[in-house]
Amino acid sequence: MLRLSWIALLSVVAFAQAPRPVLSPEVHADRKVTFRLKAPNASEVMVSRAGGPKDAMTKGDDGVWSVTIGPLAPDLYTYSFAVDGVNQLDPNNALMVPNLLNSSSSMVLVPGGMPWEVADVPHGSVHHHYYKSGVIGDQRDYYVYTPPGYDDRAKKQYPVLYLLHGFSDDASGWTAVGRANVILDNLIAQGKAKPMIVVMTLGYGEPAYVAKPQPAVRDAGMRERNMTRFRDALLNEVIPAVEKEYRADKNRMQRAIAGLSMGGGESLFTGLNALDTFAWVGAFSAGVGSDFSTNFPKLNAKSSSGLQLLWIACGKDDRLIEPNRKFVEWLKANDIRHEWKETEGAHTWLVWRRYLAELATLLFRERTS
Amino acid sequence: MLRLSWIALLSVVAFAQAPRPVLSPEVHADRKVTFRLKAPNASEVMVSRAGGPKDAMTKGDDGVWSVTIGPLAPDLYTYSFAVDGVNQLDPNNALMVPNLLNSSSSMVLVPGGMPWEVADVPHGSVHHHYYKSGVIGDQRDYYVYTPPGYDDRAKKQYPVLYLLHGFSDDASGWTAVGRANVILDNLIAQGKAKPMIVVMTLGYGEPAYVAKPQPAVRDAGMRERNMTRFRDALLNEVIPAVEKEYRADKNRMQRAIAGLSMGGGESLFTGLNALDTFAWVGAFSAGVGSDFSTNFPKLNAKSSSGLQLLWIACGKDDRLIEPNRKFVEWLKANDIRHEWKETEGAHTWLVWRRYLAELATLLFRERTS
Repeated sequence: MLRLSWIALLSVVAFAQAPRPVLSPEVHADRKVTFRLKAPNASEVMVSRAGGPKDAMTKGDDGVWSVTIGPLAPDLYTYSFAVDGVNQLDPNNALMVPNLLNSSSSMVLVPGGMPWEVADVPHGSVHHHYYKSGVIGDQRDYYVYTPPGYDDRAKKQYPVLYLLHGFSDDASGWTAVGRANVILDNLIAQGKAKPMIVVMTLGYGEPAYVAKPQPAVRDAGMRERNMTRFRDALLNEVIPAVEKEYRADKNRMQRAIAGLSMGGGESLFTGLNALDTFAWVGAFSAGVGSDFSTNFPKLNAKSSSGLQLLWIACGKDDRLIEPNRKFVEWLKANDIRHEWKETEGAHTWLVWRRYLAELATLLFRERTS
Repeated sequence: MLRLSWIALLSVVAFAQAPRPVLSPEVHADRKVTFRLKAPNASEVMVSRAGGPKDAMTKGDDGVWSVTIGPLAPDLYTYSFAVDGVNQLDPNNALMVPNLLNSSSSMVLVPGGMPWEVADVPHGSVHHHYYKSGVIGDQRDYYVYTPPGYDDRAKKQYPVLYLLHGFSDDASGWTAVGRANVILDNLIAQGKAKPMIVVMTLGYGEPAYVAKPQPAVRDAGMRERNMTRFRDALLNEVIPAVEKEYRADKNRMQRAIAGLSMGGGESLFTGLNALDTFAWVGAFSAGVGSDFSTNFPKLNAKSSSGLQLLWIACGKDDRLIEPNRKFVEWLKANDIRHEWKETEGAHTWLVWRRYLAELATLLFRERTS
């Protein structure tokens, strides 16, 4: 019989000394969610969900504020508390949103069989690589998802999706919040996506772009470096490293690039100016820019005829919907084949996980014109 | 010339709408550190460092509380704010401490050439694996560090350190907070540690042990399952998976196990009851238990003569110092070779990173008796 009394004592002591923990978030079987926060001296506490409303919370006698909302549709919601107008994450929730500028958001999963929920299927692995960029000059990183079965198939080559995050994310964004590895695990298990490698690299070509304190102004030079040096590091450093270390198919037909917001802008800028490198390009709520002929000087009907898919999506309530519509009009006017999806939603992960889940089913497959 | 005006507009719009950000933490060249927090309606705000004092903060006219402390010795400090007695992390600091029970701590690095600081040396990679445990019944994970050069040396086998976290950590604890990969990168580059694989697996044999809400009582059965099922999953699931997927040396002389706190207890329980499996055992501020003869029934001078190293360390100010001293007395009384280090410090990562940095230089080397 094991005697673990000191471990038990330690935990009893630890908990006796700690204040009674607050349970938050609490997801109910009917998909309602209760949020709680201890803030005994606050005058006003609200909870706000990304892409959703703010809800006022009510103070209890014990100084714990709470509110129950819903039922909510199954999803992975990002939320913050605002305590007398100051945002903070939920201190009682282990699921935090990684961000290079602030730590103010938490996540709650309302389950319902969605592609980003961990299921009892074979799982791929996520590899975290660190390197010093000669192009950019900093110590940086990238993640590589290898699909289930990768290690057992010693000769098989895999197509590669380069998947880029948005502004203020770090390189973990697509796994930690986007749950890209979980989405791919599920789609692959269902036969809906081809087994593929997914590379998720840090996006900033100019580290000052996301430094703290934030620059008061981003001059044109900084914005340009953020894009062009990112592109150079991807093409000259990350892709060669991936193709050396992983059984990545080097044929352009097996290479895709997609991203969200700033990463969508980077995907378009990198992909549509390197049509000999990528055959599949995806843009999720992308920062498309406005001077398309200048940004994509070599893109026309002829040069894009080898593009298997240019897939562009944006939510109706996104601030970037008008630039995206203009970009699509420009593509139409120039006879450049593409797929355009205006969806419900705004500039949030609620749409980006869905966009990945959809695009992943289209990549690397035969295309009917 | 790139036109990225919409990206620029997006960022200007985003920042125009956001309140002026607070800079925190601010590390000065003289190693003083300024902490700031906006809490306009609070009556009292303090900052407390793990293993260190609490410092009162002063409210400014703009509702931003601040304090400057130090100079501090170079280290990676964990801290929290207490706002009217309620703990929270620093919302303006991207470096958060992952924890399964709460999200209330942030980290600040005061640099000074320490082993946990990223240096311009070759970096290893960290691989994140997900699997369903048949022994424990849940979906869980483990991390594997492969040292620099691992991919280039197609035939070389490596020794393996199984490195375990403490209670309320998740499997990322040793990398996210312990910076084990950075420490190993630096020690290997300096020739102070042998290139090795490090496996950092989730520690709980009983998921209810760390569930929320926390169980009011941990009965003996729960505590036993937490230990024994962890041990079974490690020996029967994780080690075979690692040895299948990585070029891990299967000789017991090339297999080490070490851990902190709960993980230290697990290392002792697993390692000292499987002397045919491990030749190196480390315990950092370990939950050693108290009934040693019952917990280590087969351990004696003879059976432990093949142990290359039993390395035990604990801080003088740790609540577990007395149980650790008693364990060492028992080892001495039973003629079981060991190394015992009483150090400065308490039950914090400030000691555990140092213990790893020291133990890693000793592992897998010739031992002079």
